[in-house]
Amino acid sequence: MDIATLGGLIGGLALIAWGILANNLGIGPYVDPPSIIIVIGGTFAAFFIAYPLSKALNIGGVYGKSFKNPTNDIATIIAKILELANTARREGLLALEEGASDIEDEFLKKGVGLIVDGTDPELVKSILDTEMSSIAERHAEGRGMLDTLAALAPAFGMVGTLIGLVAMLQQLDDPSSIGPSMAVALLTTFYGSLMANLFFMPVSKKLEIRSAEEMVIKEIMIEGLLSIQAGENPRIIEEKLKAFLSPKVRKSLSPAEEEAQAEA
Amino acid sequence: MDIATLGGLIGGLALIAWGILANNLGIGPYVDPPSIIIVIGGTFAAFFIAYPLSKALNIGGVYGKSFKNPTNDIATIIAKILELANTARREGLLALEEGASDIEDEFLKKGVGLIVDGTDPELVKSILDTEMSSIAERHAEGRGMLDTLAALAPAFGMVGTLIGLVAMLQQLDDPSSIGPSMAVALLTTFYGSLMANLFFMPVSKKLEIRSAEEMVIKEIMIEGLLSIQAGENPRIIEEKLKAFLSPKVRKSLSPAEEEAQAEA
Amino acid sequence: MDIATLGGLIGGLALIAWGILANNLGIGPYVDPPSIIIVIGGTFAAFFIAYPLSKALNIGGVYGKSFKNPTNDIATIIAKILELANTARREGLLALEEGASDIEDEFLKKGVGLIVDGTDPELVKSILDTEMSSIAERHAEGRGMLDTLAALAPAFGMVGTLIGLVAMLQQLDDPSSIGPSMAVALLTTFYGSLMANLFFMPVSKKLEIRSAEEMVIKEIMIEGLLSIQAGENPRIIEEKLKAFLSPKVRKSLSPAEEEAQAEA
Amino acid sequence: MDIATLGGLIGGLALIAWGILANNLGIGPYVDPPSIIIVIGGTFAAFFIAYPLSKALNIGGVYGKSFKNPTNDIATIIAKILELANTARREGLLALEEGASDIEDEFLKKGVGLIVDGTDPELVKSILDTEMSSIAERHAEGRGMLDTLAALAPAFGMVGTLIGLVAMLQQLDDPSSIGPSMAVALLTTFYGSLMANLFFMPVSKKLEIRSAEEMVIKEIMIEGLLSIQAGENPRIIEEKLKAFLSPKVRKSLSPAEEEAQAEA
Amino acid sequence: MDIATLGGLIGGLALIAWGILANNLGIGPYVDPPSIIIVIGGTFAAFFIAYPLSKALNIGGVYGKSFKNPTNDIATIIAKILELANTARREGLLALEEGASDIEDEFLKKGVGLIVDGTDPELVKSILDTEMSSIAERHAEGRGMLDTLAALAPAFGMVGTLIGLVAMLQQLDDPSSIGPSMAVALLTTFYGSLMANLFFMPVSKKLEIRSAEEMVIKEIMIEGLLSIQAGENPRIIEEKLKAFLSPKVRKSLSPAEEEAQAEA
Repeated sequence: MDIATLGGLIGGLALIAWGILANNLGIGPYVDPPSIIIVIGGTFAAFFIAYPLSKALNIGGVYGKSFKNPTNDIATIIAKILELANTARREGLLALEEGASDIEDEFLKKGVGLIVDGTDPELVKSILDTEMSSIAERHAEGRGMLDTLAALAPAFGMVGTLIGLVAMLQQLDDPSSIGPSMAVALLTTFYGSLMANLFFMPVSKKLEIRSAEEMVIKEIMIEGLLSIQAGENPRIIEEKLKAFLSPKVRKSLSPAEEEAQAEA
Repeated sequence: MDIATLGGLIGGLALIAWGILANNLGIGPYVDPPSIIIVIGGTFAAFFIAYPLSKALNIGGVYGKSFKNPTNDIATIIAKILELANTARREGLLALEEGASDIEDEFLKKGVGLIVDGTDPELVKSILDTEMSSIAERHAEGRGMLDTLAALAPAFGMVGTLIGLVAMLQQLDDPSSIGPSMAVALLTTFYGSLMANLFFMPVSKKLEIRSAEEMVIKEIMIEGLLSIQAGENPRIIEEKLKAFLSPKVRKSLSPAEEEAQAEA
Repeated sequence: MDIATLGGLIGGLALIAWGILANNLGIGPYVDPPSIIIVIGGTFAAFFIAYPLSKALNIGGVYGKSFKNPTNDIATIIAKILELANTARREGLLALEEGASDIEDEFLKKGVGLIVDGTDPELVKSILDTEMSSIAERHAEGRGMLDTLAALAPAFGMVGTLIGLVAMLQQLDDPSSIGPSMAVALLTTFYGSLMANLFFMPVSKKLEIRSAEEMVIKEIMIEGLLSIQAGENPRIIEEKLKAFLSPKVRKSLSPAEEEAQAEA
Repeated sequence: MDIATLGGLIGGLALIAWGILANNLGIGPYVDPPSIIIVIGGTFAAFFIAYPLSKALNIGGVYGKSFKNPTNDIATIIAKILELANTARREGLLALEEGASDIEDEFLKKGVGLIVDGTDPELVKSILDTEMSSIAERHAEGRGMLDTLAALAPAFGMVGTLIGLVAMLQQLDDPSSIGPSMAVALLTTFYGSLMANLFFMPVSKKLEIRSAEEMVIKEIMIEGLLSIQAGENPRIIEEKLKAFLSPKVRKSLSPAEEEAQAEA
Repeated sequence: MDIATLGGLIGGLALIAWGILANNLGIGPYVDPPSIIIVIGGTFAAFFIAYPLSKALNIGGVYGKSFKNPTNDIATIIAKILELANTARREGLLALEEGASDIEDEFLKKGVGLIVDGTDPELVKSILDTEMSSIAERHAEGRGMLDTLAALAPAFGMVGTLIGLVAMLQQLDDPSSIGPSMAVALLTTFYGSLMANLFFMPVSKKLEIRSAEEMVIKEIMIEGLLSIQAGENPRIIEEKLKAFLSPKVRKSLSPAEEEAQAEA
């Protein structure tokens, strides 16, 4: 559970509510169901034009991912790869099969499987690279849905405001209704702006960063697997993999690694 | 028939109509034929400057593609490639000619034809790559037309609003006409915004996603054809092609593949 | 003569004029010479800062190109290349000199000349590639001028409107002049927007598409010339060149090619 | 301590304060705590959604870097590399170990360590390249946080203004409160704009330039280290490294280098 | 002296002044020293945060470059290279030393020096490429400063306008002051817009074009130097270098070349 996503959403909404209540008008004038329907409805109508149905219906799953913590811990992965490297050095590549049984990550498991099967190194690299870039593209597609929503929401907010303004301008003869009518007209812009900047854009950003982290981990896995297959010295493999990390993460790795090496 | 495109367009328009009717003024004040003519006419006048006539006149065909479902199913294509691989393994490359007769996809058919003709592998790759990137460029050009329209519509919406505002400001002495005049002036901005965000932008997005899907399928075809020509083991070909797919699609493929292999 | 460019410009202006006249105020209030001078003058003053004089003065030539049809027809070019390939096959590379005499395209002529001179294939490729990318860069520079104008026109439109608004606000005490003053102030924004969206942006787009088409033709020429020099089979050359084309263009090519081959 | 960052921030704020006081209303009407809370709170709520907690909490450290001067002086680094090159030439690569003891830069130290260990040149290059691009990505991520804040602040400024406008429009019947209410509504836009353009955007820009400078230094280090490992002539190494520098910096280097060479 | 830059600036300012005077209010209402100070001051305060002091202080030098004509004439450079090629052919590479004495361009001089010193061709290419891309990066950094200023000026223009609007809205009870107060508030937006679109953006564009031209000349120099070093035929070198040029420039070159070849 990623507390920051939930906390940010709740905190942001609470702040907005507090800002509204500070005007001593209550939350009432800020809630106009028809305006809400126009903005959300228009945004999602256009969204369903933009994305094939099977993908569009998956938007909930994509959004939900921003509430989950990443499953892979970089320290554990590097420790596991070094453990595999030590096993391969001492007992040969075939011995990896056993060590692979407790790997949870599908990508690493597949890579080990390919090595154990004696697949040609170039083919291993080609298959894993294709798989990694396919995953990256699917992530980008998911973020693209949120970016599309973030672009559509303010646009339909403006469409709603224009509808409201035209109605208000047609009835200028009743001065007392001008203010409230225009207030209502502005609400769709308010909803659209809030949806884009609190609900869609930041979540898209989070998924982008998560995807980048996952790709670094996959790059580390590929680098590590190819080095294991090439029979390189575990110490050199460690040196290579650590080059991907920041000094801070490197230090935090040390205990895990020592464990791995002690174990080895 | 892609129901989502049609449903999104109808749903979006219905929502806007409902939002307009919620103001109890009827749909009348929102329909101003001269405003509609200025926005649509100006947008398409600029569009015909921007695109050579033969391409510009094809905009209907480009737009229409967003209402059609893609013809290629990834599962069928992979099954077909594996079937071809099995045939080639057992009976030689020339035996592919027969198996190719029932291929509907022109690109795959052409590739099989090149292999049967004994074309040099590098030339096969070069011809298919050129063809794939030419197709991708033509798709991008089609989307470019919709993106141009999506940029022009709000611009001419603003031009129309400026025309209306200038007229209104010249006649400020009749206060009763100010409201309705300004309402009419705003309509062109409303039309331009709706055209861009409901009709052009989402459809361009859909064509972009369809094109990306089609390119993945073409990449799979090229990879598969070259592997068949190289005489690779069908199991390794399967491994290679599956790396392009998401885990979900991979699982959905299994039955089709089993069929293909049983058949083989 | 590209009728679409001229028709689009005239049609767009006619529509705007019609939209203006629909307000029953005549065209008068929309024509303010000082406003026109500020927008056009400011735009071009900044434009002359932005571009070296020799290039800036060439803007008319660049603009004019959007009114001309492209000289190269893809069918004629491919037919010519296949004819050259046949000649070279039967009579040797030196025989190309004669066949080159009626080539109108400078680029193709130069390429044939290099081959006849016995230039090293890598050098031929290097010289033609350099020339092609230099041409593409010059095209991009021409478009860049129009894009700069399209960015400057609305900016100086806004500058003009600000000048007008400040003047109007300083004289608020005469209520009868407020409307007309503000109307005049808005005119510069109107002019700037029209210049950008009707005159500059669409023409830049057309030049972009023309340039892309020309580059495809040049790529076909280079591919064809190098294949001729390598002594490849004309049928394979045809296969290679057609990969650049859409199925529709391919079909339209058939008669021309048959002619070329009958001739050969 | 980078005086320009601090001076710019203080100077910018002083100017704004002076501009406010020039209106003879005091600073009071420009300070509205609820508005400040909405803009800053909303911006950071969305920011915490966008970035994983561990990174988001590091924003202070990232921001603080813009107040520090870079630790590496290009002249000192080149002099050091030339000194190492001379040592390696005269006494062999192993002699570098001693000379490396007083290197403060971690990256250069690591590189020297790899050379002393007799690591394969390609592996040295691969490890240092990976490390350099990992550092560049971490820098880009830090700047990305500031860019996200710079995009969010004006957005929440507008959200705050919309909240205020709706409140004002609901109470139009009290004319005396219209002005001040609208003034308060505009404050959030003012805060958001100032945050983006004075606090976030310029600092992101400074970090971008610093990062680019650091990458040039790292490129120089890699180039120098590989040349040392290849046993190249120190004069050629000097020629190579100086190609990275501007003529001005080159001249300023001369004394340092002469020192280094005299020393050598 | 680049007359176009100066002429454009003076012409643009004269036009704006004329547009202002056309309102018969004199230039007075458009000159508000506090507003000028806020926009210029705020823009440069943020600018000094964004750029390290040593670079920021160099902004005058960068700006000044747009008033100078480029020193290198493409015809002279090509003639010189061909002259060097002829010398090298007849008298050997060492004879270039003498011919290099009258080369003014530092880059070409350095290249000739490297060749005379018998430097390895790959190293010559590597050093000159590094130097060329370092120069291109420094140019881009200079333009980046102007682009930053062009982005900051309108932003601080808006900040100033918000300050003025808030002040005006707080004093709505004095109707006679509303107009002039709002006029003054708009001035900062006017200044910011003018600074960006007349002073910063066009000059950045000019430097971009100049840099591109310079890079083409440097590419020609590198190509020419490597060909000379490889002992290629001067006629082939000429053919290669001319591929970089437009047909128009090629024709204008002919006299200079003939001279060079006559001389040779």
